[in-house]
Amino acid sequence: MPLLVVGSIAIDSIHTPTEVRENILGGSATHFSYAASFFSGVRMVGVVGEDWQEEHTQLLADRGIDTSGIEVEEGGKTFRWTGKYHNNMNDRDTLEVHLNVLENFSPTLSEEAARCPFVFLANGSPTTQMKVLDQMTGPRLVVADTMDLWIEIEHDQLKKLLSRIDGLVLNDSEAKLLTNEENLVRAGQKVLDMGPKFVVLKKGEHGAMFFSENETYVMPAFPTPDVVDPTGAGDSFAGGMMGYLSEQNNFDPKTLKEAMGYGTVVASLIVEDFSLDRLKGASRDEIDGRFDKYRQMLSF
Amino acid sequence: MPLLVVGSIAIDSIHTPTEVRENILGGSATHFSYAASFFSGVRMVGVVGEDWQEEHTQLLADRGIDTSGIEVEEGGKTFRWTGKYHNNMNDRDTLEVHLNVLENFSPTLSEEAARCPFVFLANGSPTTQMKVLDQMTGPRLVVADTMDLWIEIEHDQLKKLLSRIDGLVLNDSEAKLLTNEENLVRAGQKVLDMGPKFVVLKKGEHGAMFFSENETYVMPAFPTPDVVDPTGAGDSFAGGMMGYLSEQNNFDPKTLKEAMGYGTVVASLIVEDFSLDRLKGASRDEIDGRFDKYRQMLSF
Repeated sequence: MPLLVVGSIAIDSIHTPTEVRENILGGSATHFSYAASFFSGVRMVGVVGEDWQEEHTQLLADRGIDTSGIEVEEGGKTFRWTGKYHNNMNDRDTLEVHLNVLENFSPTLSEEAARCPFVFLANGSPTTQMKVLDQMTGPRLVVADTMDLWIEIEHDQLKKLLSRIDGLVLNDSEAKLLTNEENLVRAGQKVLDMGPKFVVLKKGEHGAMFFSENETYVMPAFPTPDVVDPTGAGDSFAGGMMGYLSEQNNFDPKTLKEAMGYGTVVASLIVEDFSLDRLKGASRDEIDGRFDKYRQMLSF
Repeated sequence: MPLLVVGSIAIDSIHTPTEVRENILGGSATHFSYAASFFSGVRMVGVVGEDWQEEHTQLLADRGIDTSGIEVEEGGKTFRWTGKYHNNMNDRDTLEVHLNVLENFSPTLSEEAARCPFVFLANGSPTTQMKVLDQMTGPRLVVADTMDLWIEIEHDQLKKLLSRIDGLVLNDSEAKLLTNEENLVRAGQKVLDMGPKFVVLKKGEHGAMFFSENETYVMPAFPTPDVVDPTGAGDSFAGGMMGYLSEQNNFDPKTLKEAMGYGTVVASLIVEDFSLDRLKGASRDEIDGRFDKYRQMLSF
């Protein structure tokens, strides 16, 4: 089933304790789409500037991603983000952020995009996320991401969004901020009370938690000794998860749990190199192999 | 099979964000023994002062724990610790610590204690831990805990200890300090290279990792919304784990993994109230029930 993602496309500069990489491909929609493409057809909607390099589009298209929704804004510059990771590779500081073309991004969906049954609203203002929803014609499953900024400055809009979506994906610190609750189990349950049918609470290197009316569970991150660049781990997690749901054309509890497993596995791959480099060399077979290892790791 | 634990017995004062409890029973050997007593016979060795209250011994004896190794030092005072938890209930500050009788504690084992096949050397100086080992007559499985203090001031002794034990249990921050490695997978593997056959790396609310020559895995904490007092979680984890190994009289990989699960479950119970209060009301049936839930949570 085709999967729609609307989100950011970025040029990142990444500082890790051992290396600096400048002007590499990033953005929530980018990481999400690439990860999801191993499972499902993906339509990607976003905006870039005149500085955008055609080779990036080609890279995405080569994985079968429908890039016709990538709008090039004349005279504009692509969104840029510069981040620096702490020694623990889990915390990071934003050194620079230039919204550029993202500042006035108002996504317009093609007819095909509007008809996608599975939708992921990557991190963006709740107002923009709802504008996307307004254009959809009866999606089966809508999942959104959010961040601290929107919790702080668009709280009411976010609350409205929460009543219109099926699933929400957010970080542990964001869940605490949104619910004013330090215990993550309570925080997740409180987010659930705000409207979505399920909540995925991401804990970075410590994995992710899942909350629905009938279930609460935790899945650890797949342990990898090779953490090179954690950028995009959360979006790849969502991409693996949504890609699998879309492939299965199902989101019952069993499929959702497997999808959490696939999200975990794809995220563990992406952090092993910069940008999309690790996934570029990956195959569905490799992902399935790590998924089996992960499943076995958790059975006793 | 009888299980020996040598470690601290304490009177704690605990400050949580919502409550203060003074002069409650604590200590590594105490938490360990109580947790292990649901699985196995336990012999507890430690020292207390003249201020020790007989009701504490009675509480332990009521669970079948052999308390004859608790030495009462004339004119001495019991070890005291006061700690304050941060809002996240995972980090804490030590407000006061009075070693008292623990300062010159030199454990002497009875013949029965020396013959125990399963041994846990709870947190203590490596020198003292090795003195215990010197008295043992052919134990089958020796596991030790350690802490940052010993890594810093008794590094050489700790290295010696590591070559004499089968398993080491330590915190994530301690593993990083010991190995000078930020990635926990690498840190765990480096500790393994120092001698023990397996390493358990505890991550507090995020669970625990296991390392052996042939296996690396992560087990998340059992998610509980009711975290009242995390004191003793790590020692109870070790108690549940070692208790189960001792009960099964086995420590093959399959049994070790189940033991990690039991450790996780017992730790998730102890944090739901102060001191031993939550476990006082627990039964093996309740522990087994949560274990089954935990196992199910991780299967997909």
